[in-house]
Amino acid sequence: MDGPALRQLLDDVRTGVVSPDDAASRLRRLPYADLGFAKVDHHRVVRQGIAEAVYGPGKTAEQCASIVAELVDGPEGSGGPVLLTRATDDQAEAALVRTPGGVRTGWTVVWNAVPQRTGRIIVITAGTGDLPVAEECSTTLEAYGFRPELLVDCGVAGVHRLLDVAGVLAEADAVVVVAGMEGALASVVGGITPAPVVAIPTSTGYGSSFEGITALLAMLSSCAAGITVVGIDNGFGAACAIARLLP
Amino acid sequence: MDGPALRQLLDDVRTGVVSPDDAASRLRRLPYADLGFAKVDHHRVVRQGIAEAVYGPGKTAEQCASIVAELVDGPEGSGGPVLLTRATDDQAEAALVRTPGGVRTGWTVVWNAVPQRTGRIIVITAGTGDLPVAEECSTTLEAYGFRPELLVDCGVAGVHRLLDVAGVLAEADAVVVVAGMEGALASVVGGITPAPVVAIPTSTGYGSSFEGITALLAMLSSCAAGITVVGIDNGFGAACAIARLLP
Amino acid sequence: MDGPALRQLLDDVRTGVVSPDDAASRLRRLPYADLGFAKVDHHRVVRQGIAEAVYGPGKTAEQCASIVAELVDGPEGSGGPVLLTRATDDQAEAALVRTPGGVRTGWTVVWNAVPQRTGRIIVITAGTGDLPVAEECSTTLEAYGFRPELLVDCGVAGVHRLLDVAGVLAEADAVVVVAGMEGALASVVGGITPAPVVAIPTSTGYGSSFEGITALLAMLSSCAAGITVVGIDNGFGAACAIARLLP
Amino acid sequence: MDGPALRQLLDDVRTGVVSPDDAASRLRRLPYADLGFAKVDHHRVVRQGIAEAVYGPGKTAEQCASIVAELVDGPEGSGGPVLLTRATDDQAEAALVRTPGGVRTGWTVVWNAVPQRTGRIIVITAGTGDLPVAEECSTTLEAYGFRPELLVDCGVAGVHRLLDVAGVLAEADAVVVVAGMEGALASVVGGITPAPVVAIPTSTGYGSSFEGITALLAMLSSCAAGITVVGIDNGFGAACAIARLLP
Amino acid sequence: MDGPALRQLLDDVRTGVVSPDDAASRLRRLPYADLGFAKVDHHRVVRQGIAEAVYGPGKTAEQCASIVAELVDGPEGSGGPVLLTRATDDQAEAALVRTPGGVRTGWTVVWNAVPQRTGRIIVITAGTGDLPVAEECSTTLEAYGFRPELLVDCGVAGVHRLLDVAGVLAEADAVVVVAGMEGALASVVGGITPAPVVAIPTSTGYGSSFEGITALLAMLSSCAAGITVVGIDNGFGAACAIARLLP
Amino acid sequence: MDGPALRQLLDDVRTGVVSPDDAASRLRRLPYADLGFAKVDHHRVVRQGIAEAVYGPGKTAEQCASIVAELVDGPEGSGGPVLLTRATDDQAEAALVRTPGGVRTGWTVVWNAVPQRTGRIIVITAGTGDLPVAEECSTTLEAYGFRPELLVDCGVAGVHRLLDVAGVLAEADAVVVVAGMEGALASVVGGITPAPVVAIPTSTGYGSSFEGITALLAMLSSCAAGITVVGIDNGFGAACAIARLLP
Amino acid sequence: MDGPALRQLLDDVRTGVVSPDDAASRLRRLPYADLGFAKVDHHRVVRQGIAEAVYGPGKTAEQCASIVAELVDGPEGSGGPVLLTRATDDQAEAALVRTPGGVRTGWTVVWNAVPQRTGRIIVITAGTGDLPVAEECSTTLEAYGFRPELLVDCGVAGVHRLLDVAGVLAEADAVVVVAGMEGALASVVGGITPAPVVAIPTSTGYGSSFEGITALLAMLSSCAAGITVVGIDNGFGAACAIARLLP
Amino acid sequence: MDGPALRQLLDDVRTGVVSPDDAASRLRRLPYADLGFAKVDHHRVVRQGIAEAVYGPGKTAEQCASIVAELVDGPEGSGGPVLLTRATDDQAEAALVRTPGGVRTGWTVVWNAVPQRTGRIIVITAGTGDLPVAEECSTTLEAYGFRPELLVDCGVAGVHRLLDVAGVLAEADAVVVVAGMEGALASVVGGITPAPVVAIPTSTGYGSSFEGITALLAMLSSCAAGITVVGIDNGFGAACAIARLLP
Repeated sequence: MDGPALRQLLDDVRTGVVSPDDAASRLRRLPYADLGFAKVDHHRVVRQGIAEAVYGPGKTAEQCASIVAELVDGPEGSGGPVLLTRATDDQAEAALVRTPGGVRTGWTVVWNAVPQRTGRIIVITAGTGDLPVAEECSTTLEAYGFRPELLVDCGVAGVHRLLDVAGVLAEADAVVVVAGMEGALASVVGGITPAPVVAIPTSTGYGSSFEGITALLAMLSSCAAGITVVGIDNGFGAACAIARLLP
Repeated sequence: MDGPALRQLLDDVRTGVVSPDDAASRLRRLPYADLGFAKVDHHRVVRQGIAEAVYGPGKTAEQCASIVAELVDGPEGSGGPVLLTRATDDQAEAALVRTPGGVRTGWTVVWNAVPQRTGRIIVITAGTGDLPVAEECSTTLEAYGFRPELLVDCGVAGVHRLLDVAGVLAEADAVVVVAGMEGALASVVGGITPAPVVAIPTSTGYGSSFEGITALLAMLSSCAAGITVVGIDNGFGAACAIARLLP
Repeated sequence: MDGPALRQLLDDVRTGVVSPDDAASRLRRLPYADLGFAKVDHHRVVRQGIAEAVYGPGKTAEQCASIVAELVDGPEGSGGPVLLTRATDDQAEAALVRTPGGVRTGWTVVWNAVPQRTGRIIVITAGTGDLPVAEECSTTLEAYGFRPELLVDCGVAGVHRLLDVAGVLAEADAVVVVAGMEGALASVVGGITPAPVVAIPTSTGYGSSFEGITALLAMLSSCAAGITVVGIDNGFGAACAIARLLP
Repeated sequence: MDGPALRQLLDDVRTGVVSPDDAASRLRRLPYADLGFAKVDHHRVVRQGIAEAVYGPGKTAEQCASIVAELVDGPEGSGGPVLLTRATDDQAEAALVRTPGGVRTGWTVVWNAVPQRTGRIIVITAGTGDLPVAEECSTTLEAYGFRPELLVDCGVAGVHRLLDVAGVLAEADAVVVVAGMEGALASVVGGITPAPVVAIPTSTGYGSSFEGITALLAMLSSCAAGITVVGIDNGFGAACAIARLLP
Repeated sequence: MDGPALRQLLDDVRTGVVSPDDAASRLRRLPYADLGFAKVDHHRVVRQGIAEAVYGPGKTAEQCASIVAELVDGPEGSGGPVLLTRATDDQAEAALVRTPGGVRTGWTVVWNAVPQRTGRIIVITAGTGDLPVAEECSTTLEAYGFRPELLVDCGVAGVHRLLDVAGVLAEADAVVVVAGMEGALASVVGGITPAPVVAIPTSTGYGSSFEGITALLAMLSSCAAGITVVGIDNGFGAACAIARLLP
Repeated sequence: MDGPALRQLLDDVRTGVVSPDDAASRLRRLPYADLGFAKVDHHRVVRQGIAEAVYGPGKTAEQCASIVAELVDGPEGSGGPVLLTRATDDQAEAALVRTPGGVRTGWTVVWNAVPQRTGRIIVITAGTGDLPVAEECSTTLEAYGFRPELLVDCGVAGVHRLLDVAGVLAEADAVVVVAGMEGALASVVGGITPAPVVAIPTSTGYGSSFEGITALLAMLSSCAAGITVVGIDNGFGAACAIARLLP
Repeated sequence: MDGPALRQLLDDVRTGVVSPDDAASRLRRLPYADLGFAKVDHHRVVRQGIAEAVYGPGKTAEQCASIVAELVDGPEGSGGPVLLTRATDDQAEAALVRTPGGVRTGWTVVWNAVPQRTGRIIVITAGTGDLPVAEECSTTLEAYGFRPELLVDCGVAGVHRLLDVAGVLAEADAVVVVAGMEGALASVVGGITPAPVVAIPTSTGYGSSFEGITALLAMLSSCAAGITVVGIDNGFGAACAIARLLP
Repeated sequence: MDGPALRQLLDDVRTGVVSPDDAASRLRRLPYADLGFAKVDHHRVVRQGIAEAVYGPGKTAEQCASIVAELVDGPEGSGGPVLLTRATDDQAEAALVRTPGGVRTGWTVVWNAVPQRTGRIIVITAGTGDLPVAEECSTTLEAYGFRPELLVDCGVAGVHRLLDVAGVLAEADAVVVVAGMEGALASVVGGITPAPVVAIPTSTGYGSSFEGITALLAMLSSCAAGITVVGIDNGFGAACAIARLLP
């Protein structure tokens, strides 16, 4: 309702096409559906360029199914991909039964994935334990139409494994680094590539990893300039950040 | 030395243009100058697409001046902008005397700024106290050729001030959010714009702000998907992140 | 026994109506019942204006039932609503069997709710995951005679959803903000309404939310002046704070 | 511009009194003055019921003076009290020279204090070291027209000193508890009075007080139900909270 | 072997009663039994005046039983009470089967309790949830021969409940305060009694209690001088501290 | 006013010796002097058995002098030693000029020290850097009439230095352990002596000592049972704890 | 490929034995096997002198078995011991079925242990609860060919138990100290022996041990110079550190 | 006095060469000199193999001078190098005037450096800001007779600078890694060299480096096995660790 639409509405008021009361009402009406326990946002993809995601934890399977159904099949539609994230088996099944057509990968279900987009995106992980978070990131990127390449197990303690992929990294359009423990992979990758680097600290590791805090702090303090960071284990968020920056 | 250059070198060895010893030496020679107390990296701009920055704190004025001189006027040149950051008056003066032509803004000095680039970048701050960090970010962006717009004092407690600039934010190519205290501005901006959003938590605030930790945690936990974060007060890093993502 | 009652007691001593020994005894007698494992406080509602609540965790079902019975049906009665909070099924059932007439909502059971009071109270939540805490708050408010309105899923990433309810917020007598993750909702609401705002940080969220610490710190650092905060997930406490401030 | 004003504007558009362009412009025009380094908010007192405060730290004396002048003497006026908080001598003097009529108490300067309001407010401190924060709170309350009573040095280690004022506390309309170290005063006061209690943790104390964190945590965990808390040393915020809740 | 015993041993060497080799051996021999997985210390009660306790967690039932048996029935005997603490049912049963005569209370089993000692010790708790820790403390005190009095549910929010027992506290020989949440009880008790006060923070509480850290910090920062503190939930340690200070 | 005095007062009311109004007034009158900025507590030594201490930081020299004068020379007198702690030169001089007769040691000034008491107290420090805190403790103990012995520089890395004093420790009536860095001295001393051990963590050390937090945590987790702990650098508090436990 | 091998390869290019394309390929080929979900590093033992370990948690039993098989029986072999650490029963069995010959001790399985090496290594623990971590360390040391001696239950509270083994410690080639709670054992051992001391903080203990953080901080702050520390519970890491330093 | 010496002493008692009283005295006499404010340890070099160091902070210049004098020129001598660390100008001068012959480098002064030892030790730093800590480490190593090589400014963001020195690292006898910010250098170095690696986290860096905590945690969580860590900025400690492990 910004810019031209607002101007048009006011013109319509002036010419009598729309009554002032209707205009006031429309100025206040907002593009979401109220399900009682949740407000479903149909225009997020327009406003933010990112898909609406339903975060599973803390919701019943029925609530998940209802919100997904509203987003995918509601009167306005979401105009973009719809994701159910961190879903349990029950939540995923309930949503897929009510709204068929979704594709499940790990703990993520995607409906209405966007057609393929260009852009070479690398998702690189330090260890095998970082795979579930990397998978959440990849699946979300695929919902946006990307075809990310996954490079696994490239921890800096075997720096030659990393150098082997240096060429690939240098030519990427964007790189997502997924690492737990001391998170040093982000710094080394950041020094190799001129591409945007989004770092995801993971809760992988034990003892002094402190559930991802060590990797988080290390990535924020990286000596490689221009690296940005998302929250611990937030594969979805990193993918959304990539979707914001690529055309 | 990756790809074609390596192939060429090996061809030269085969044809005798380059002796094996020279090739081995060149394979090991790396493009930096060793000043004794620092290794100056001439090819970072090529490798990472970002400028070489000299971080002032902990260095003598003389050391700052020497490193800057090597980067700007050394035999290989840096091939890009050179920054002296967090510089004291003494450091800035020593560097400017030895290497004239730099431009100082606040605690940052820039040599060899890149010619103007396109791309609409907004740097938005929550309060007046965030200005020094925003200025470091803007100055660094200008070194890369951008002409960032600065929107000040848009804290969410006066949300109408923020809505006033919603149109500008929605059309930006990238947005840097600079906020201390509770850092909520990042979430609200992230919900308004589809552009990439890089958030800088600042140490502005008192009491329960804990020198920026509160804003940092809040930005990492943002309910607006796809926001990325850099370290506390790291205006330079956020600018480098923008430089990585814009063409 | 402060003021007039003390004066009367001493007059009664002077006139011989009460013997000094009895007076000394009464000056020491305190209005609670000692159940052995708990001291039941019959006068809290008089002294503090708030109901006595039995906190379930760490107590046996039998202990819960005994304390509730003493408060509701004991010789002095509590003179106000009685709550059993964070009750398990076993605890709630044991108490309801022994003291019928209570009403259970979620993990809270209420006996002797106060007759309806005026006062427009809004309980607003950032996400669906904040509902259980909001419900604890609402149920406690209802025990005090209020009829709170619940506004769900108003997170700041979709700030238009929030603006839609701005009028309601501006006219409220008190607002309770329930939010996890980065807790930014409290700041935005605080900037919209002149009413008292009590913020409850919730342990909703993951990764960098740190079980509610992020929201807690953010709310304490809010740039919207005059917001007050209760402990993490403390819906009961926020309701009591509202009961203290409304007539 | 909510409710009747919006309706009027749209009527004016319909009747041609206001052109659509002007209406669009007015719908976007917001009641603040942009000084370049700050946006001065003239309507906060209307919107939030609280005064606009200029937080001194991080601003030059000249900036403080300019913002105060705009708020007190600007074309729209603030419609309420104006405060300069945590002001240095230089800041306070610069602002008072440019905008006479302010009254300075400690590190706070007040212009346009509201005429006296009813409401008995007690500000109670645990120790002498809490006085500066209590004074910031009292001065802010006075700007809102209250006449707070200050009770000093009532720490719980001498609980008889506290009981001496129990009657006063029980009859107050609101109580602000200011305490550092272990912050226990808030719990004891909360058990004595039925009035709203706002607790301010202070950075008073040493060693294990951890600059107010201990008192903050203790107040948030208080066993006295219905206490609310503001940030460490935030006397201004507590006063604003009181102003929100009293008529 | 300090003082007279050492002198005697050396005299015995001089007179030939003990050979130098035997003396060297005895100087090195130490009064414990090595069970392979544990070294059982028979002389702790002599050296430290406190019982040997076997801490259950992390040991098998068989290991617990073996260590207890060595301490109670071993060739040297322990010369004092023997405790098995934090015992599971399995551990307690295995130890009682192998070494009958122990008495179990909650998660503690005691063998060879000392005959009754004088000394009036009060164990006072803030809430019902603190009872298990208070019970560990009482049971340990009983092993040392004390007859502690338990005062339950005396939280400071109902300060009159506490004043009711002020006389008892003032005359005690030692007081143990057991409190979670904000731990304020320690400060108030410390201000009432001249006796030694040992405070035990408990992990009771929720949200901002942070598993006892809040109470711990508050007790360490107490405004009542001369209070000492033991670790979180350490009822055993507090009892040992009392045993050290009473004759 | 507890027990006999209360009984007497009520008898006096009954016989007309005291009027009810006077009695009510006396029941409310409490034994402190109100200086406006502080309430001076004359009966603390009676009530708690410990001296009243004036904590210097945050008070003006004049305030320190006034409070000390009231305590030492006021109409009721303090009935015990008076201390000014953490005093600056200005504070100490102002107090000594107004109330001669005090003795200054380091940052502590003592008036009215108690005549010599029996009881062998050892104050043992790990390093030279712990001396100022040990001195605060010793000076306070001397105010209570003790003659503590100071053992310096007995860190556990040279465990033979500690064993050299094992005999002294074993025979002490109480031991205060003062240690920073890793605080291990408390555990070793606690294993050597059966006496009460009060541990003071100090902020001595650097890097990973974290201003005393490391020593504090280590002492609270000590494997030597029955050690109690006071706050970081709290030499005064440890001395008060000793005064509580010795006759 | 460093030094002579690189020289040889380039000679081969010059003489035509190897084509430039092949050389470029070989320069990029790295000695690991890519299993898809993991890159198996065959040359770590050469490069770092330490075995390749497969960390169990977060991997399926099948993944563990595949990686172990590749390392033990792959075309290049690992050239050294192979460990599966923190293995569940399922993981250990799957790996042993597929690659027989491994030896399991606790949660560690070892294949291809190195023949016996000289070097006297002591692994000393503070309590029985530290045994599992000590066992992980011992088993790893045995994989490297050492025969470590285990000294258990030598906590500093019974310092005489420790002195009993002082001679053994003084003559060791390296000492590993395994301790939870306050971790003081590291300091005392460090003061007794001139050998390298590697300290492992364990998560043993309760309450104020904070899952090993207390011991970790204490060991890092040790007053015994020259102690080094590994992460919490990292018995494997400590053993690798020993393997690096002994010939 | 362990082993043969003890046997000899007891023989001497038996034969009358030494009286029992003298023997008892000698058994208790320990090889340190008591200066009143410090116990000077003459045998540490024998017992621990490391030099005695005087830590400057918190000591007067006079105390530093006295302790150094006792160690260098005392009746027993220290038998090894003596260091004064973190010395101010005043402390260094006072000690050098009283005990000439020391050599000062930065904040460290060394007397009686050991003659040259073999062993190739690399001290490698991530940035210029790490130099002071690296220098403390190098100077201490030189006191032990080593000739460490210093490699500066090898941060992982320019990983090619690091690879350039990979050969040197691979052949070292020991490597000390000195790094602040995210501390990733330790992991990369640990993956390159089979030598012992001791990592020193430094407080270099800003914002999210948190005074060295980030680097400390990262080093403790390193994915390169067998790295050990000392406390923040503890260059002295790392050097002592090296001295323990090299012959």
